[in-house]
Amino acid sequence: MPDRQPLKQLESTLSDEPIRRPGGRSARIRTAVLDATLAELADVGYDRLTVEAIAARSGVHKATLYRRWGGVDGLIADVLVRSAEQPWQVPDTGSLRDDLHAITRVIYMGFTDPEHGAVPRNLIVAALRSSQAARALTGFFETQHGLAAEVVTRAVRRGEAPEGTDAVDVVRTACAPLYYRLFVTGEPLEEVAAHRAAEAALAAAQAGAFVR
Amino acid sequence: MPDRQPLKQLESTLSDEPIRRPGGRSARIRTAVLDATLAELADVGYDRLTVEAIAARSGVHKATLYRRWGGVDGLIADVLVRSAEQPWQVPDTGSLRDDLHAITRVIYMGFTDPEHGAVPRNLIVAALRSSQAARALTGFFETQHGLAAEVVTRAVRRGEAPEGTDAVDVVRTACAPLYYRLFVTGEPLEEVAAHRAAEAALAAAQAGAFVR
Repeated sequence: MPDRQPLKQLESTLSDEPIRRPGGRSARIRTAVLDATLAELADVGYDRLTVEAIAARSGVHKATLYRRWGGVDGLIADVLVRSAEQPWQVPDTGSLRDDLHAITRVIYMGFTDPEHGAVPRNLIVAALRSSQAARALTGFFETQHGLAAEVVTRAVRRGEAPEGTDAVDVVRTACAPLYYRLFVTGEPLEEVAAHRAAEAALAAAQAGAFVR
Repeated sequence: MPDRQPLKQLESTLSDEPIRRPGGRSARIRTAVLDATLAELADVGYDRLTVEAIAARSGVHKATLYRRWGGVDGLIADVLVRSAEQPWQVPDTGSLRDDLHAITRVIYMGFTDPEHGAVPRNLIVAALRSSQAARALTGFFETQHGLAAEVVTRAVRRGEAPEGTDAVDVVRTACAPLYYRLFVTGEPLEEVAAHRAAEAALAAAQAGAFVR
């Protein structure tokens, strides 16, 4: 466990609206606490997730966690906010087909990784069970959809899909069948499903199914 | 509350493996109990669902409920089994486009009905929170997908989609974007989403995106 003295000093100076300088102490506390939240979620799941265990794991006093995040659901919500803040390299292969395949492949790999796949899965299951975290999940997907939509916007500019195509809807169509298996029907997520979802979204986009 | 005398008599004769004649007493108990489970789920949600309240509402003794269904999760699972057993009129308009639109429209109407829309929504949320009920949910979707796939099989016979098309995958692609909004991203489910999902699945099927 890290030395808690500096954090304890900080806690006493933290107001309800801490100044959050990137790289500052407040940011370091956030990183430690949200990392601990994810690790606890992976170890014990949502049902047995407690502020006490997250406090112990992060070395941050539980009073700080309650004051800043309200509780477990606020912590999960902030994990999602942080995930949405983290930049990712949106594919830009020069072809809509390859870009869509890259996107569905990232989702497929993320959820089926034998070592880390349980983390995003547990996070989404947890978020679906709390209205506060569910709102954060909606925001997370809004951000991700917006970023990924860039591959469609570029494809329209290149003439690969018709003018007026709803770029976000192409992204939703590519992603939805994977999440449908994982979180609705409970069917296994196989590589061919990621491949088919990309091909289907591409064909539908090319055919003008998403023109507003 | 209905007269409980006949049911009380029946309970004492019920073994662990009751004879389930269609229309028999065991079937009548099941109907009363599962109807009460759905009504309680609509009224109080999964978190406050209790065998006691379902027993009171159905007029069936709680000991019977525990013996036959094990508990709340077993009751939810059996509601899903019953839903899968209930026949529904798979559309047969003579056109794959119209059939797919009819399917996505049924889903849209079911979940957005202001009076009854909360029932299927609560049921799926509940099923996603119990591993026993989640297995029943997987079985429910397997049945529904299999029935709906008939519209694609007929379309292939008519030459509207290529030979070798994976019929169930066309159905998944038509349905997934609606469930994705409802149960993953939390985005509103609007009529245009149902329309677009049918058009996208159609275009992708016609383009051969689902050929095995």
